[in-house]
Amino acid sequence: MTKVKVGVAGYGVIGQRLADGVALQNDMELVGIADVAPTLSIRALAERGMPYRLFLAAQDNTSKFTELGIPVSGTIEDLIGQVDVMLDATSAGIGKKNKKLYEKYGVRAVFQGGEKHDIADVFFHGCANYEKGIGKDYLKLTSCNTTGLIRAVDCLDRSFGIEQVAVTIIRRSADPGDTHRGVVDLALVEPVPNHQAKDLMLIMPHVKATGFLVHVPTTHGHIITVVATPKSDVKLDQVLSEFKKHPRIRVVKIADGFNSNAALFRYARNLGNPRGDMYEISIFEETIGFSGKDIIFALNVPQEAVVVPETMDGVRACTKMQAVKDDALVLTNKYLGIE
Amino acid sequence: MTKVKVGVAGYGVIGQRLADGVALQNDMELVGIADVAPTLSIRALAERGMPYRLFLAAQDNTSKFTELGIPVSGTIEDLIGQVDVMLDATSAGIGKKNKKLYEKYGVRAVFQGGEKHDIADVFFHGCANYEKGIGKDYLKLTSCNTTGLIRAVDCLDRSFGIEQVAVTIIRRSADPGDTHRGVVDLALVEPVPNHQAKDLMLIMPHVKATGFLVHVPTTHGHIITVVATPKSDVKLDQVLSEFKKHPRIRVVKIADGFNSNAALFRYARNLGNPRGDMYEISIFEETIGFSGKDIIFALNVPQEAVVVPETMDGVRACTKMQAVKDDALVLTNKYLGIE
Amino acid sequence: MTKVKVGVAGYGVIGQRLADGVALQNDMELVGIADVAPTLSIRALAERGMPYRLFLAAQDNTSKFTELGIPVSGTIEDLIGQVDVMLDATSAGIGKKNKKLYEKYGVRAVFQGGEKHDIADVFFHGCANYEKGIGKDYLKLTSCNTTGLIRAVDCLDRSFGIEQVAVTIIRRSADPGDTHRGVVDLALVEPVPNHQAKDLMLIMPHVKATGFLVHVPTTHGHIITVVATPKSDVKLDQVLSEFKKHPRIRVVKIADGFNSNAALFRYARNLGNPRGDMYEISIFEETIGFSGKDIIFALNVPQEAVVVPETMDGVRACTKMQAVKDDALVLTNKYLGIE
Amino acid sequence: MTKVKVGVAGYGVIGQRLADGVALQNDMELVGIADVAPTLSIRALAERGMPYRLFLAAQDNTSKFTELGIPVSGTIEDLIGQVDVMLDATSAGIGKKNKKLYEKYGVRAVFQGGEKHDIADVFFHGCANYEKGIGKDYLKLTSCNTTGLIRAVDCLDRSFGIEQVAVTIIRRSADPGDTHRGVVDLALVEPVPNHQAKDLMLIMPHVKATGFLVHVPTTHGHIITVVATPKSDVKLDQVLSEFKKHPRIRVVKIADGFNSNAALFRYARNLGNPRGDMYEISIFEETIGFSGKDIIFALNVPQEAVVVPETMDGVRACTKMQAVKDDALVLTNKYLGIE
Repeated sequence: MTKVKVGVAGYGVIGQRLADGVALQNDMELVGIADVAPTLSIRALAERGMPYRLFLAAQDNTSKFTELGIPVSGTIEDLIGQVDVMLDATSAGIGKKNKKLYEKYGVRAVFQGGEKHDIADVFFHGCANYEKGIGKDYLKLTSCNTTGLIRAVDCLDRSFGIEQVAVTIIRRSADPGDTHRGVVDLALVEPVPNHQAKDLMLIMPHVKATGFLVHVPTTHGHIITVVATPKSDVKLDQVLSEFKKHPRIRVVKIADGFNSNAALFRYARNLGNPRGDMYEISIFEETIGFSGKDIIFALNVPQEAVVVPETMDGVRACTKMQAVKDDALVLTNKYLGIE
Repeated sequence: MTKVKVGVAGYGVIGQRLADGVALQNDMELVGIADVAPTLSIRALAERGMPYRLFLAAQDNTSKFTELGIPVSGTIEDLIGQVDVMLDATSAGIGKKNKKLYEKYGVRAVFQGGEKHDIADVFFHGCANYEKGIGKDYLKLTSCNTTGLIRAVDCLDRSFGIEQVAVTIIRRSADPGDTHRGVVDLALVEPVPNHQAKDLMLIMPHVKATGFLVHVPTTHGHIITVVATPKSDVKLDQVLSEFKKHPRIRVVKIADGFNSNAALFRYARNLGNPRGDMYEISIFEETIGFSGKDIIFALNVPQEAVVVPETMDGVRACTKMQAVKDDALVLTNKYLGIE
Repeated sequence: MTKVKVGVAGYGVIGQRLADGVALQNDMELVGIADVAPTLSIRALAERGMPYRLFLAAQDNTSKFTELGIPVSGTIEDLIGQVDVMLDATSAGIGKKNKKLYEKYGVRAVFQGGEKHDIADVFFHGCANYEKGIGKDYLKLTSCNTTGLIRAVDCLDRSFGIEQVAVTIIRRSADPGDTHRGVVDLALVEPVPNHQAKDLMLIMPHVKATGFLVHVPTTHGHIITVVATPKSDVKLDQVLSEFKKHPRIRVVKIADGFNSNAALFRYARNLGNPRGDMYEISIFEETIGFSGKDIIFALNVPQEAVVVPETMDGVRACTKMQAVKDDALVLTNKYLGIE
Repeated sequence: MTKVKVGVAGYGVIGQRLADGVALQNDMELVGIADVAPTLSIRALAERGMPYRLFLAAQDNTSKFTELGIPVSGTIEDLIGQVDVMLDATSAGIGKKNKKLYEKYGVRAVFQGGEKHDIADVFFHGCANYEKGIGKDYLKLTSCNTTGLIRAVDCLDRSFGIEQVAVTIIRRSADPGDTHRGVVDLALVEPVPNHQAKDLMLIMPHVKATGFLVHVPTTHGHIITVVATPKSDVKLDQVLSEFKKHPRIRVVKIADGFNSNAALFRYARNLGNPRGDMYEISIFEETIGFSGKDIIFALNVPQEAVVVPETMDGVRACTKMQAVKDDALVLTNKYLGIE
């Protein structure tokens, strides 16, 4: 089998996990990763013995790597020249510059949610609109919150039909270790509708969505509450059953101790998952209920790793590895060890 | 005019503010406050020169007060013997014991939300069911979150009729200075429905309510998001207009800087309000919108002082100071300096 | 008595408190305050009925104030033209621009700690080097942490002689309501020595100082631990006695409940202090002890208001209101209600 | 080679890591772990396929495990009957009860720092007093903070001789996921001296120690600042060199991005370390300096895993696997992958 060759640009919070994800896909080959400076993430890669080849996106910094004894395998263009598709997880705005290189070398690219919509041909979510991404040159993934939210709403929508959703996103204000964007003793409220609701409607145009975005002093996982209006009456057992069937959704019980974003993170660490990551969103079983005929529930989105499965789906779609969504998702899940 | 004589049992976070509130009511007389030990709150009272007389609820501790030079005016029974109504803001469970004393002396009492429902004849909210409290011996107030939530929902209900609400309460997990119930880097999720929704239905039995309760690492103000289903179609201007007319509701703009619970607390401090308190809930104007025909909005509940107005209303109701709700609320507001 | 005329530039966290402080000094007149935009602080001033006159530091914004019905009394130059001394509490860097205006109008100025040292003739602390500020045109105050630290070290130094100090500053990472500089679940460590130690040595050049700066997720008060080497042996009672005699130092007991920065803030609110402020630093009595012959203790610095007394001292010094330090400090303390 | 047989009682935060640690020691055999209920940690073990055998410490709960399909291999007494030494990581107080079982079966035990000193024959730290533990029946390990602190102080003491230390412990107030002991927006100060200083003097009786304990809203790693008085003059290079030579100490640079407890945790996760753990303490290079002739520095203690190496040392000592400290520590380090 010829493997699809993949490169990762930007080895930060998301890029590291995309690289790990690609390395786990038996039908993909991680050619290497590209970054600009010897960040802590790069230093950790070096301390691990450089399991991935490193390419430099900023030539000026070569000496910094040399001094640290970190081997560099070439420039980012060297990397691009060897791949079929680039996963771009650089800081917002950089992807636009990189796109010119991707065009120059005629390689496909999957951008992350921080980029503007117009960077890509398709705004993509593996579960919700896989078909739209097939054979396209440039995909843009949904952001972490939207990825998790759509998984849950799409799951209900496919079974029951969803007319509208109103969500409250209780957002972790900083990633672990971030020193520049946290809030202390403060819940920051943004205007309605939040961008996640707007993004959901771009991916699922037949659903009306709106909602709240509140930033709070946490670092491990967004909590989202959802009020979803189904097209017809639904029963609790049906909802629960659909969620439980979804491979990328965990249904967890508060009574068992899964009572917070932090409990889920701790659980992922105790599972021995690399980086303490979890690919699945978790829905708290005791929060599934009804407001009138509206379905309500709360979910946890592990912001660091949640986009990995849908990004792998994106590679499968744009490179036409699988023409059928279900085939693609089954493979992504299998290689990531989901369910 | 004969003033209604009022005592306060429990001089903690809430009790202090009830005492201040009573002291501001021209038609009430604060006879004194009762507590058990020289807490920081009592020490602050002493440093201020004892504007309120102190009665002791635990005789054994008399010497502790004497040593500190804090004058004691008698026992809690001495206090009860001099009042028409007691405001009981003691720790949950103590009110039940105190009730026997209130019965012994034949005085009315208004309990706070931590007590069990059966302690009182009426579960009371000044705005929503003033009439039910008139002339009753024992009232129990709604808790801070429920008080704020009901103000907003009752406001809409009186104008438009509300069928159901689904709320997400983003709760401050500890009061400022609390060392025993905070959460760190964690959003704690409780089973649905939250007790605030259940309490709302007790006060407003014609409305169906449910929702989420999430505890977060903040100390200054709960944030609540609401999805409210009106009985008929409503327009944004109408909603905004009703909120703006309500004396106990502030409509604030995120664009002006009122973007968080902490910003509102800071504003209250900068207003020079005693203790940095605010009696009003605040609704963030840019969060008022619609999900389908459902009205959505987010509000801030200043947990320390929000119950003061409705508790003053409670005194007016149970002692029959005013037989008409509007008369009562106007007076409460006027003396508290609201609007 | 002719009062010294004072203006305040920058009505933010510090500026508001300086204005309040000046307004309390019977021998000073607050001519007005200057700011650039209708911030929440200015809105609070307006809601309070404009107790202070407002001058505009940015002409372009006049219409914004007019629309809000906030009266403007002129430009910042109009204000400067009417005063003897300006207290500059603008954002770091603005003071340098403003200085040209102060020079143009020949008025003295006291800058806050955010400015660079070369902005002023003297780096000033009321307790530690009052004499150096007498009659000088431009003073720069120490920052909040340094102000509090020097109060305590200077207190010991005057009594016992201090050779060296090693401090650990556990710094609140954001002011209440700040959304742009907090840290979450993180203690951020800075290189040794911290700037507070360096600043201490500028004010007290006969003392060697060094230490650590650690930023933590709190908003109410820095905690500083000190290891101070006295020139000769000292006893605990002597240390305690000196701290207790100092008007701007509170000695508090953990056993009484004063066990945190937040407890002190809560106490200040319960005292009814405007904005919940406290001018005094607090030393935790049970932390006073010895490491060998070194004196050790921990203190709390209420970062918002701590600089007010020393800034008032600065006005007295530079305008030559008092030629003797003790006379000046007694007056500042008296008018601020300290002790 | 006959392996030493080890059991672990209490599979919580520490117990899990001790079990992992034992499993990595080639000359030890992890017979199994014991706990009382299907906690999240046990559920994670089950989801991992039960790499360790589970024994039940509470018979009544057998059905709970059966229902979940979690295999139970017997009672805690069955476990004790098969081992040479038990590592007791149960909640404080339980160890005392368990000790009777250990005595009944004549097995050695190593208790964790939460137990009272009199539970053991020796208060033990692998680096500092290995010799004292040799052949003893019951050891008690130092707690996480003390373990990390002693590593650093012992390192200096062996090279330079340390007379006294004054420390400031900035303690994480809760472990990740804990919901019952966090503090919010608060730095809680404890009386001097802290128990860690007292414990240090028990392990290193020739050193005088005192210091501060401040609890802050973080979950990942204690930060400790140290002022250590050497017996004779020392130079920075010497200090740095000793720290760098110590296998259980990492010297990290703030300039490289290692600027906080959270950065170190993130780095450990990115290294792919199981549970995101780190066994080493980290000393921030730019914080190493002098206050007079006193050595100062700041370190990070990863509270979850730091005790693992010294506990493994404890097994080696009490079972007389190695009679020479250096031999023991080299093996512990090798099997844990340190250095």
